[in-house]
Amino acid sequence: MSYHAKRREMLRRVFSQNNLDAYLLSDFYNLFYFTGLHTLAPEERESFALITREKCFLFTDSRYAQEARALQSSEVIFAELKQQKGLLTWLKELIQDGTIHTIGFEEDNLTCAEYNAIASAFSGDCTWEPTKGMGAGLRTIKDSHEIEMIRTACQIGDRCLQEIIPTIGLGTTEREIAFRLEMHVKQQGYDLAFDPIVALDAHASLPHYNTKQGNGMIAKGSLLLIDFGVTYQSYNSDITRMFYFEELSSEKHTAYEQLKKIQIQTIDKIQEGSVLKELDEQCRTSLIQAGFPEYGHSTGHGIGLEVHEMPKVSPVSTEVIQPGMVFTIEPGIYLENDFGMRLEDTIGITSENKPELLTKYPKDIQRLSS
Amino acid sequence: MSYHAKRREMLRRVFSQNNLDAYLLSDFYNLFYFTGLHTLAPEERESFALITREKCFLFTDSRYAQEARALQSSEVIFAELKQQKGLLTWLKELIQDGTIHTIGFEEDNLTCAEYNAIASAFSGDCTWEPTKGMGAGLRTIKDSHEIEMIRTACQIGDRCLQEIIPTIGLGTTEREIAFRLEMHVKQQGYDLAFDPIVALDAHASLPHYNTKQGNGMIAKGSLLLIDFGVTYQSYNSDITRMFYFEELSSEKHTAYEQLKKIQIQTIDKIQEGSVLKELDEQCRTSLIQAGFPEYGHSTGHGIGLEVHEMPKVSPVSTEVIQPGMVFTIEPGIYLENDFGMRLEDTIGITSENKPELLTKYPKDIQRLSS
Repeated sequence: MSYHAKRREMLRRVFSQNNLDAYLLSDFYNLFYFTGLHTLAPEERESFALITREKCFLFTDSRYAQEARALQSSEVIFAELKQQKGLLTWLKELIQDGTIHTIGFEEDNLTCAEYNAIASAFSGDCTWEPTKGMGAGLRTIKDSHEIEMIRTACQIGDRCLQEIIPTIGLGTTEREIAFRLEMHVKQQGYDLAFDPIVALDAHASLPHYNTKQGNGMIAKGSLLLIDFGVTYQSYNSDITRMFYFEELSSEKHTAYEQLKKIQIQTIDKIQEGSVLKELDEQCRTSLIQAGFPEYGHSTGHGIGLEVHEMPKVSPVSTEVIQPGMVFTIEPGIYLENDFGMRLEDTIGITSENKPELLTKYPKDIQRLSS
Repeated sequence: MSYHAKRREMLRRVFSQNNLDAYLLSDFYNLFYFTGLHTLAPEERESFALITREKCFLFTDSRYAQEARALQSSEVIFAELKQQKGLLTWLKELIQDGTIHTIGFEEDNLTCAEYNAIASAFSGDCTWEPTKGMGAGLRTIKDSHEIEMIRTACQIGDRCLQEIIPTIGLGTTEREIAFRLEMHVKQQGYDLAFDPIVALDAHASLPHYNTKQGNGMIAKGSLLLIDFGVTYQSYNSDITRMFYFEELSSEKHTAYEQLKKIQIQTIDKIQEGSVLKELDEQCRTSLIQAGFPEYGHSTGHGIGLEVHEMPKVSPVSTEVIQPGMVFTIEPGIYLENDFGMRLEDTIGITSENKPELLTKYPKDIQRLSS
C-alpha cells in the first residue's frame, strides 16, 4: 500500500470515529499529504478530494489532468472539473448512492463562500460537519521518511550557513546576505522555506522584519540575526542564529548567553507525555525571571509540509508531546529601537523519545571579521 | 489625503450603498491595498482591519506593532491583538456604541472557522453580511500610479528575457533557465511574481508544468515555452513567449503563426464597454475554428497586487471593460504528449481607452542557436 493510501486509511479511521461518512479535503498541503496531488499554489483553490470509506475522488481541472491520472488506482478516481461539471455537480452525483449522509470539511480552510455554495446545493441530501485540524492533526506525527526529509532540509540549511557566513564583511547588506543564502540554496536545486529574515541591530527587534525593504549594512559592533529555512522534497527546516561583527558589548553578550541557556534548558525539558503549553510556560517564565521582556510570539511551532503547522508551542497548546512530532523552540529578546536576538532550532521527537536536534549549526554567538 | 485614505473612502461609498455600517477586511492583499499594512504572508491570518464610516481599526499583533503605529492618523487606529485581547474582544468593544448594526465581511476569504467564531460571539448585537469581491472589485480599476508599477514590472521582465535568452544553448536545462531568470530578477532587487514555468516540448502541453521537478534539456528542434513575471513594488507582470532551438517543424511554425494572429486579433478587439466574456469567446472560437483543441483555462486574468485577480477573461466573465483595468490575454495550444504553446501579454486599458501592451518583448517565435 502506498504511503498516501496508508495516510488515507488513518484519516478514514479518524473521521469514522467522528461519525462521518466522508471527508472533503480543500487545504493545499493536506491534499498533497493524503493524495500526492501537488497543484500550483495554496491560493488556487481549484483542487479538492473527497475521501469516502472506500474511495478517494480527486477533483481537479485539465491543468493537472495528467498528474491526477497518474495517481489513479482501484481506490483513487480522477473526477475532472470542467466548465459544465464543477465540484458541486460532482459531489451531488457521488452522494446519490445513499451511503453518504454526513461529510466532514476543513472549517479552518474552506471559505464562507465555498461553504455557502455547498450547503445551499445540498440541503436535506446530507449534512456538512465542520471539523478543525483533522488532517493537520494526523500530520503532526511524522513517519521516519518525513523526519528524514526534514533532517536533510536542516542539514542543507546548516551547510548553507557554513558557506555563506564567511562571505559577510564590512559593508555587506542584509539584502545581500539574504540573496546569497537564496542563491546558494537554489543553485543546488533546493528551495527556500520562506524569505530569509536577515536583521541587524534594532531591525531585529521586529520579529518579522522585512529584509527586502530594509537597508541594514554590517558595521563594527553590528549584531546580526539570520532566520531562514530550506524546503527539501516539500519538507521544511527552520533555524535562527546570531552573529556579531568584530566586537559586541558585554550587555549583549550576557543577554545572549542567558537566551542560549534558557533555549537549551527548554529543549532538554522535552519529554514524551508532557503538555506543550508547560514547555512554553517554562521557557517564557525563565526569560522573564532573567529580567527580559516577554517575547510576543509562540515559543515554537510545528514544521513539516508547512513552515508553521500543528502543534504550536504556545500558552494555549494542549497537545501532548509524542514520538514523530517535529517543532521549533525559538525564544527571543526584543528591545524596541535597541536590539533583538533569537535562537531557534528544529527538533524531532524520535522513536527513542528523546528530542533530536535536527539543526546542528553551533549555537554560540559567532564573531565575524573582515 | 493619502491614497490609502482615498481608497477607504471609495470602499465606504460602496459598502454604504450596500446598507452596511462597516466592513471587515481579512484578505492579505486587500488589507495592504486599503491600509498599507504588509504582513508576512497570506496564510498568516493574524491581521485584519475594520473600516467604519469614520475610522479604520488596524488589528494586528506585536510583530507588526511598529508598522501599524507608523500608519496611525486621526482616522487610522492601531488596535493591538494580544493573548488577552483578541479580535473578537476588540470587535465587541467597538460595536458597543450602537452605531454599527451590519458589518460586511469577505465571504471569499474568511474561513468557516473564523466566521463561526465571529457569528457565535455576536448573535443579536449586529449582523454579519457576506460579500463577494467588494475589495477585489475596487482593485480592478488601477490608478495611474498602479499602472506605472505594473508597466515597470513588465519592463523589468522584458529586459530580463533579453539578458537571459542569449545564455540558452544546447544542453541548457529548464531548471537552469528558470534559475537564471530568478537570479537576474533578484540581483537587481526585484522579485519573481511566481515560479517561472519553463517547459520544453511535451512538457509545455501541461499548462502548469512544474519546472522544479522537471528534467527537460535543450536539444536541436526543441520548442521552449517561458511563462514568468516580476513583482515590482508589490505589483506584478506576466508574460509568455515561445522559442525554438535551431530548427522547428513547419507544422509547429504554422500553429504558432495562427496562435499569434488570434492573440493579436483578440487584443485589437479590446474596447471600453465590451463584456469580457465576449472577448474570451471570440478568442476561443477563433482557435477552435483554426482546427486546434480548446484550451482548458481562461483566456486571461486580471493582474495587480495578485498575479491572478479580478476581472477574469473567461466564458462567465460579466465585467465590462473599463479604463484602469489590467489583464492578460493568453490563449494556448496544448497537444498532450506532443507539444504546447502559449502567447501571453499583460494589457492595460489606459485613459485613452485603447489597450496598451505593457509587455513589449517581441511576439515572433524566436530562434535560438549555439
